[in-house]
Amino acid sequence: MKIIIINGPNLNLLGKREPEIYGNQPFESYFEGLKSAFPKDQLQYYQSNVEGELINKLHEVGFDYDGIILNAGGYTHSSVALSDAVAAIKTPVIEVHISNIFAREEFRHVSLLSKHCKGIISGLGLKGYEMAVRYFTGQ
Amino acid sequence: MKIIIINGPNLNLLGKREPEIYGNQPFESYFEGLKSAFPKDQLQYYQSNVEGELINKLHEVGFDYDGIILNAGGYTHSSVALSDAVAAIKTPVIEVHISNIFAREEFRHVSLLSKHCKGIISGLGLKGYEMAVRYFTGQ
Amino acid sequence: MKIIIINGPNLNLLGKREPEIYGNQPFESYFEGLKSAFPKDQLQYYQSNVEGELINKLHEVGFDYDGIILNAGGYTHSSVALSDAVAAIKTPVIEVHISNIFAREEFRHVSLLSKHCKGIISGLGLKGYEMAVRYFTGQ
Amino acid sequence: MKIIIINGPNLNLLGKREPEIYGNQPFESYFEGLKSAFPKDQLQYYQSNVEGELINKLHEVGFDYDGIILNAGGYTHSSVALSDAVAAIKTPVIEVHISNIFAREEFRHVSLLSKHCKGIISGLGLKGYEMAVRYFTGQ
Amino acid sequence: MKIIIINGPNLNLLGKREPEIYGNQPFESYFEGLKSAFPKDQLQYYQSNVEGELINKLHEVGFDYDGIILNAGGYTHSSVALSDAVAAIKTPVIEVHISNIFAREEFRHVSLLSKHCKGIISGLGLKGYEMAVRYFTGQ
Amino acid sequence: MKIIIINGPNLNLLGKREPEIYGNQPFESYFEGLKSAFPKDQLQYYQSNVEGELINKLHEVGFDYDGIILNAGGYTHSSVALSDAVAAIKTPVIEVHISNIFAREEFRHVSLLSKHCKGIISGLGLKGYEMAVRYFTGQ
Amino acid sequence: MKIIIINGPNLNLLGKREPEIYGNQPFESYFEGLKSAFPKDQLQYYQSNVEGELINKLHEVGFDYDGIILNAGGYTHSSVALSDAVAAIKTPVIEVHISNIFAREEFRHVSLLSKHCKGIISGLGLKGYEMAVRYFTGQ
Amino acid sequence: MKIIIINGPNLNLLGKREPEIYGNQPFESYFEGLKSAFPKDQLQYYQSNVEGELINKLHEVGFDYDGIILNAGGYTHSSVALSDAVAAIKTPVIEVHISNIFAREEFRHVSLLSKHCKGIISGLGLKGYEMAVRYFTGQ
Amino acid sequence: MKIIIINGPNLNLLGKREPEIYGNQPFESYFEGLKSAFPKDQLQYYQSNVEGELINKLHEVGFDYDGIILNAGGYTHSSVALSDAVAAIKTPVIEVHISNIFAREEFRHVSLLSKHCKGIISGLGLKGYEMAVRYFTGQ
Amino acid sequence: MKIIIINGPNLNLLGKREPEIYGNQPFESYFEGLKSAFPKDQLQYYQSNVEGELINKLHEVGFDYDGIILNAGGYTHSSVALSDAVAAIKTPVIEVHISNIFAREEFRHVSLLSKHCKGIISGLGLKGYEMAVRYFTGQ
Amino acid sequence: MKIIIINGPNLNLLGKREPEIYGNQPFESYFEGLKSAFPKDQLQYYQSNVEGELINKLHEVGFDYDGIILNAGGYTHSSVALSDAVAAIKTPVIEVHISNIFAREEFRHVSLLSKHCKGIISGLGLKGYEMAVRYFTGQ
Amino acid sequence: MKIIIINGPNLNLLGKREPEIYGNQPFESYFEGLKSAFPKDQLQYYQSNVEGELINKLHEVGFDYDGIILNAGGYTHSSVALSDAVAAIKTPVIEVHISNIFAREEFRHVSLLSKHCKGIISGLGLKGYEMAVRYFTGQ
Repeated sequence: MKIIIINGPNLNLLGKREPEIYGNQPFESYFEGLKSAFPKDQLQYYQSNVEGELINKLHEVGFDYDGIILNAGGYTHSSVALSDAVAAIKTPVIEVHISNIFAREEFRHVSLLSKHCKGIISGLGLKGYEMAVRYFTGQ
Repeated sequence: MKIIIINGPNLNLLGKREPEIYGNQPFESYFEGLKSAFPKDQLQYYQSNVEGELINKLHEVGFDYDGIILNAGGYTHSSVALSDAVAAIKTPVIEVHISNIFAREEFRHVSLLSKHCKGIISGLGLKGYEMAVRYFTGQ
Repeated sequence: MKIIIINGPNLNLLGKREPEIYGNQPFESYFEGLKSAFPKDQLQYYQSNVEGELINKLHEVGFDYDGIILNAGGYTHSSVALSDAVAAIKTPVIEVHISNIFAREEFRHVSLLSKHCKGIISGLGLKGYEMAVRYFTGQ
Repeated sequence: MKIIIINGPNLNLLGKREPEIYGNQPFESYFEGLKSAFPKDQLQYYQSNVEGELINKLHEVGFDYDGIILNAGGYTHSSVALSDAVAAIKTPVIEVHISNIFAREEFRHVSLLSKHCKGIISGLGLKGYEMAVRYFTGQ
Repeated sequence: MKIIIINGPNLNLLGKREPEIYGNQPFESYFEGLKSAFPKDQLQYYQSNVEGELINKLHEVGFDYDGIILNAGGYTHSSVALSDAVAAIKTPVIEVHISNIFAREEFRHVSLLSKHCKGIISGLGLKGYEMAVRYFTGQ
Repeated sequence: MKIIIINGPNLNLLGKREPEIYGNQPFESYFEGLKSAFPKDQLQYYQSNVEGELINKLHEVGFDYDGIILNAGGYTHSSVALSDAVAAIKTPVIEVHISNIFAREEFRHVSLLSKHCKGIISGLGLKGYEMAVRYFTGQ
Repeated sequence: MKIIIINGPNLNLLGKREPEIYGNQPFESYFEGLKSAFPKDQLQYYQSNVEGELINKLHEVGFDYDGIILNAGGYTHSSVALSDAVAAIKTPVIEVHISNIFAREEFRHVSLLSKHCKGIISGLGLKGYEMAVRYFTGQ
Repeated sequence: MKIIIINGPNLNLLGKREPEIYGNQPFESYFEGLKSAFPKDQLQYYQSNVEGELINKLHEVGFDYDGIILNAGGYTHSSVALSDAVAAIKTPVIEVHISNIFAREEFRHVSLLSKHCKGIISGLGLKGYEMAVRYFTGQ
Repeated sequence: MKIIIINGPNLNLLGKREPEIYGNQPFESYFEGLKSAFPKDQLQYYQSNVEGELINKLHEVGFDYDGIILNAGGYTHSSVALSDAVAAIKTPVIEVHISNIFAREEFRHVSLLSKHCKGIISGLGLKGYEMAVRYFTGQ
Repeated sequence: MKIIIINGPNLNLLGKREPEIYGNQPFESYFEGLKSAFPKDQLQYYQSNVEGELINKLHEVGFDYDGIILNAGGYTHSSVALSDAVAAIKTPVIEVHISNIFAREEFRHVSLLSKHCKGIISGLGLKGYEMAVRYFTGQ
Repeated sequence: MKIIIINGPNLNLLGKREPEIYGNQPFESYFEGLKSAFPKDQLQYYQSNVEGELINKLHEVGFDYDGIILNAGGYTHSSVALSDAVAAIKTPVIEVHISNIFAREEFRHVSLLSKHCKGIISGLGLKGYEMAVRYFTGQ
Repeated sequence: MKIIIINGPNLNLLGKREPEIYGNQPFESYFEGLKSAFPKDQLQYYQSNVEGELINKLHEVGFDYDGIILNAGGYTHSSVALSDAVAAIKTPVIEVHISNIFAREEFRHVSLLSKHCKGIISGLGLKGYEMAVRYFTGQ
């Protein structure tokens, strides 16, 4: 299966930024472990801080990949354009958040993306990415 | 590990009620499969339509179980008392919803429970319960 | 025809509570008269102050009775769980209120149940229950 | 008894307009049947699309008729002037809606008239008019 | 005088739950001390986590007791039915909260009960119950 | 000077409708007295329950009269079209209300007309019309 | 093709009213030019300040004309009844506004009609009417 | 008759402050003219920028004067305490505003005082004070 | 112990103002009784209608008194400055209201002070002051 | 004349994305036809998914082109920066939407751009672009 | 240059009140340092807890001083009267806050004064006063 | 000290765009002057219209520079991602606005950035940048 993890703004700082919220493991090292746990599947990873580049990537993969795991960071709560992109593509999307967005500031409680996603996993740390892969691969 | 699944109002109708939203498998038969997939752990299941009985059950298990998986159905969106109960106990709680509550009516987008839960899994069908068990057991 | 009247919280006080709003006839004596007016039909009556017991009763009768007449009292305005129960069953429901809820406090103007009911009768006193029976029986 | 049914805007299209919501019987033919069902009472019918003409009619009949059955259509939700007219007259008014206004768009959930009416019947089709007549005549 | 203290959901955990907010004395032991301080009066205590059972108890005592002291916990902020019950009975009710509900989360600032109560005491710890008894007994 | 008083919906019922709010003098008899108090000026009076007829009248007089005294009744609070008409004409308009609209229901506290009027007089009974005439005539 | 332009309240003042917003050409003279530009089509024009008369006209033409161009003026923002009329008829409607309603007062930003119209043209002056005719005629 | 005009904050700047809104006549000189127009009545004038001093003055005069004319300036829109003072006294109060507060910023459209006043005059310049005196004296 | 009662605007009218809400005993006479009931403690009383003077008094006593009992009247609901003063001082404050502010107008349901106070007593008449003294003195 | 069409996010998917809303013609092929219909004018086309690139393009063309036709897609409803860019440039802008944004989700009813545009055309399909060109060229 | 610093309620407690927010230097000692840093200019300082006295002071200095530096404390967020005073005077005003009001409670994010001020400096400690002086003196 | 000024969207147009609001000096020439005023410090300048590029720049400089001066233009009011970036870095940030954002449109009154910044300077023109540099350098 072809599955891609797309991370949005500030997630490149993982391991460096506010470790009490996000933990201190860089995403790249976590991703290496994840790939080796699913040797039969093609896992990819993409990160950008630019809203339009995230849209470009969704367009690129959204018609033939088997699954998209999207953590859009701060764009989750404000981007109609990203929400439209998720609606426009055909590949199913699972929205993942590392922290429990519902236990943080009120503006983080509303996601513009959720209604076009298959489902949402929030608050279970980096484990949430693995769960989403497992959902797509049926393992 | 001792883990309990607590289902709230109307979830006893699963398999019978609005199958286009909730699927047509009764929860009991799903739960049997789930138990056999985790033979080393003690999995329990409780369901009630009465808000206060759900609170009673949380009090009963909430100080020595290892994990609670809570789908509080309609009480999710209106019960301060249930939210207080989740806050008052010590066992970590994962909130699960079978359907994607963010893709349904607007009043279902607000959960009073989430802020006291470890995390939330929504929209991934009955598979969401298995994911939560897997999170607690580390499998 | 099998028709049930389900009354919610505080309606057991009818005839005793705020008679300037609700009149002073106990519901039981009114119900006796109602039954004798429809001798060919099976009319039943149930009352509970417990939200979950009202849900239980709706589940019990909601798949083979011909009509449900529901006055959910204060739960009308706050219970998502009861609203879900009305949506989940198959028997049509008519919502009845003795007083004109739209002429009272503003929070009574919103009913969470109405959108899943066949119709609503409000403000016509105990006569509203008879009208609802008449609607179901076609008399 | 002298009873009048007053229908507001677009109700002249009944039987022709959106039959999936309003059915396909013209109101005039329904009204003929209704009159013959209450041979001892004087039933009248008036319809206008003009807000001010509805007010004029309420003033005309509102001090000596025994009952008014009012379906103000779209003016229900926006007309303070019509609401004032209902408050200003002496004849009791029952508000009737053919469809269940609470199961439709949100702006139809608020009626400016209800608080000055005796009661409201909504969602029971043309049958609702008959029920209102029956209420006034005590049959 | 016959006075009853009615405690709502989660107050059975007192002494065990979040001691930094609620202190660590179980209510039962506090109540014993309270009874001995008012030897001439009949003091009773009732607790339930079930909304409908609290309503039942209010109905049972609300027509011949001299005073009710009600701490409805989380139901304070969401229960129209409980509010209706307080309005329906004749015995005066004083609303008590152990913590200062106005210094906590915003949804705790609104009480649906207060408008039907004689008064409210909030934030003065268990001492608030004694004050309410003193008010009823005139001591 | 040419001055016209324009009264809107339900004001034809004056003296007959809710006398505790509006007094019991018909407007016509009041107007006769008013005319004789200003013998040198041309005072006219117009009333209609139809929103569009009020607009027609404003267009007719609004470019050469010296003053318009407008009591638009219930349309005050809901009619953008009437508000546009007041803005579109050249004659200055004084808005008059017999009762104190700010001491009544909340929806009466907002006037869509006021911002295009010269001023507003509210709560001073029929005397308010005289004051407005006096303002225009400088007496 | 049979196409009608329906103008609502205050648009009869065009050329006379607030020329800095609406220009100073009377609609009648503009309409003459428009008709001669589309010699093969039947163009009609109707104006009224009365909400109910606009509804009457929509009913009259709405089942056999090929296109309706509607500028409902102030009723655009407040009339549920007019909105219902547009929904009830079969002829497609294009909503036109001479000024850019989105650059004016906030209450003009909401149109109750738009959701039942084919489309909307706003801010392009009288040219907007011609564009709408062109759309219907495919020129 | 004993009548007092009470002016609130910033009204001491009249004639000096924003003359395009408030005109350029100092209030004192206007008041001299007003007194000589009502030679038989006792007219007084008081101004303060201090909210509490306005309350003190209302207490002082509010039980034996015949009329109070109150322009509370900016306190009109924010002072519950002043509103309570108007409610607490016995002398009737007319609220006057020099400018048309409904044609200015939105926060000026809400007056906390109006509901306890006899009436309101707004937008008619200094003439509004004279009108209020005339109302009290019946001239 | 040194305890001060600070009363805000309009409370000097006690016994004279709206006796159906506030009773008819002047505060001074009540205070004499209160002092004699606590002979060992130093009780003081201060009243002002001026917001800033209340702040001055809080600053003066707020660092060495043992308790402050504050009834800020109308300033309770609007004064950020008074709320800041309560937060800035060290002496604990109990907020007292004679009437049940939650059973009155909606704007009285929000207190800006409560979150910085130890607790609140509302609706128990003048008795509330005594209760607060008792709380501080531990009697 | 120099005219540019600027399309925002997801409009590159035209013909591929949700054809029931947007039709199935790629924009490029439509644009070829458009250019040949206006042989005397210079028509250009630009598309980007990146908000900042759209701003860059507006800056580049916004001081010497004759007209800009802007369909900003999802950024229409959320981008203050794009709105500022439209305000900052000199070339007039017409806002075009292919679908009727007022008949879709509520968050699409608000455009941050409209108030700085010359006008808006919505719901008339790709035809809307042609209309806008025609407006600028006066054809 | 003549420049005055005007501090509002509770700022007299500086150095004593909540030092973690406001620091522990009394304003008077800070002000001495400030004056000596600008030997050529006339710097003054005024503080009051009384809203009306702040207004009085603004009136007194607001027509001939060169600059006013205003920290209105809690009145910033609630006083229309003070906002009117700033608008009424001629001397430019810079609003200063010691703490970052936008990082504190939400009600502190809205300043009624800002729109009439030249500018605002917030969160830069006592340094903010110096910056404002520097702005006026051009140093 | 290493200090960087980061300007967001449309600020590249400075000197060219709306000079009545922003003045007519290009930022580059202002920046040259600023650098020469602080010869001992390293001042840098960066501008981009792309939200994600601003985030990239903040990440790049945010862990070793001594100060960041951020004017995020329109992104100030809508970008959660930029706000998160400010929170994620270590270098203190001062938010600067050339115009007084609180005296402009209401949507400009809310900054998502402020709560993570050290402070804010608004309305003092280009001088605000100099003040911020001065704050960091302590001059």
